[in-house]
Amino acid sequence: MRILAIESSAKAASVAIMEDERLIAQTYQHAGLTHSKTLLPMIHGLLAGIDCTVAELDTIAVAKGPGSFTGIRIGVATAKGLALGADKPLVGVSSLEAMAHQAKHLGQGLICAAMDARRGQVYNALFHAQGDKLHRLTDDRAIAIEALFAQTEHSGPYLLVGDGAALCYDYLQQEKIPAQILPEHLVQQTAWGVAMAAREHPAGCVHDANPEYIRPSQAERERDERLQI
Amino acid sequence: MRILAIESSAKAASVAIMEDERLIAQTYQHAGLTHSKTLLPMIHGLLAGIDCTVAELDTIAVAKGPGSFTGIRIGVATAKGLALGADKPLVGVSSLEAMAHQAKHLGQGLICAAMDARRGQVYNALFHAQGDKLHRLTDDRAIAIEALFAQTEHSGPYLLVGDGAALCYDYLQQEKIPAQILPEHLVQQTAWGVAMAAREHPAGCVHDANPEYIRPSQAERERDERLQI
Repeated sequence: MRILAIESSAKAASVAIMEDERLIAQTYQHAGLTHSKTLLPMIHGLLAGIDCTVAELDTIAVAKGPGSFTGIRIGVATAKGLALGADKPLVGVSSLEAMAHQAKHLGQGLICAAMDARRGQVYNALFHAQGDKLHRLTDDRAIAIEALFAQTEHSGPYLLVGDGAALCYDYLQQEKIPAQILPEHLVQQTAWGVAMAAREHPAGCVHDANPEYIRPSQAERERDERLQI
Repeated sequence: MRILAIESSAKAASVAIMEDERLIAQTYQHAGLTHSKTLLPMIHGLLAGIDCTVAELDTIAVAKGPGSFTGIRIGVATAKGLALGADKPLVGVSSLEAMAHQAKHLGQGLICAAMDARRGQVYNALFHAQGDKLHRLTDDRAIAIEALFAQTEHSGPYLLVGDGAALCYDYLQQEKIPAQILPEHLVQQTAWGVAMAAREHPAGCVHDANPEYIRPSQAERERDERLQI
C-alpha cells in the first residue's frame, strides 16, 4: 500500500511516500517559508522525482493538528483537494501521535510529544513504546508545562519530541527530572511519522479528516472576549 | 555556515542543506532509480524550494565512499562540478562515518556502520558515541562479517546502521550477541549524516575529495585475474 503523507502543523513542512513499511521518498523544509508557497511544489517534486502519479497512490494521510492553525489548514486543505480530485481515501492523524513514532526506537522512557502553544502552554500527549508499538497514555490537550509534569506520576526519563521539546527540557532540568531531547534530525515532526501513524487508523472520506485545533483560534478568542461570552 | 551535502553511496540518494547545526532542508529517495537521473533534479528542487542559490552556499560536502562504485562516482562528480563551477570549498567524508552520526543519540552501545559489499563482505567501521561526539574505533574496511565480530572484543549491544545492518543483525542473532537494528527512518545513510560528518573535517579544493572504493572494482578485478597479476 502506497501512502502519501503530509505534515505542516508547525514551522517545518514535509511530505513522504511510504510503501508498506518502507520509506520511498521524503522531502523536508524548515526554512521559514510559508507552507502555502512550498507544500504543493514539494508534493509535485517528490512524486515527479520517483516517477509516481497521484493515481498510483492508495491513501493520502495528513497531520490534522494540534499545531499552527494556518499550517494545519493548509495541510488539511491540500490533502482534501488531492483526495477528492483523485478519488482516494484520506486519513487525518494527530500531529503529536505522528511525532511520537520518531522516538519509539529509544525504548525505555516516556515519550512526551510537545508543541509550543504559546500563552504558557504546550500541545501535548504522552506515549509509551513497546517494541515497534506505540501506546497512547493521554488525549491530545493544551496544558501548562507545570501542570503536565505535576499530573504525571513518572520519574523519567522523558523522551522529548516536537518544537516544544526545548521548553519542556528546560523545565525538567530545573526540576532535576531526567530527560532526553531528541537530536536535530528527529525532534521536528516529519511526514514519515504521519505515515507511520496513518497505518494504525482507518482511512475514510474527505469529510472525516477535519482540523483539530484543541483551542479556539486567536480571532475566535478575541471575538468571544469582545462579546463577553 | 551553510552546507550542501550529497549522499549517493548506496541505493538511496539524499541531499541536505544545513545551516550550522540546523537542518534547513532534506530530500531523500529510495525508489530504485539511478542516481544519474535523480541527483541533480533533487539538488535543484531542494535549493529552489527554499529560495537558495548555489552562490549562497559556503561548502559542498559529499560521501566519498565506500559503497556502490557507480553511486559514489555520480555523487563525487556532481559535488566536484558544483564546487568547481561555483568556486566553493569541497569536503569528502566517509559514508560509514556519515551514517554513524544517525545512531549516536542512542548512547550506550557500539555503533557498527555496515554496507553490503557482496562477496561475503561488508564495508564497515566501528564507532563509539560520547554525548554528541563520535569516536572512530577502526578504519573503513571491507571485511567478512564473521571476522568483523571475531576481531571485536565487545559483548554488545551493537547499534547497526546502513544497508548491511540486516546482514549483521542476522549473524549476531545466531551468535546470541545483543544488537539493535536502527528503524526504517534512520537505518539508511542520509545527507544529514554527511553534513554532520563534514563539520568535523576541513574543506579543501576539488582535487582533495576523491572516491574511496576500498576494494578494486569488478572490472579491475577481472582484468587483474585475466592478466594474472
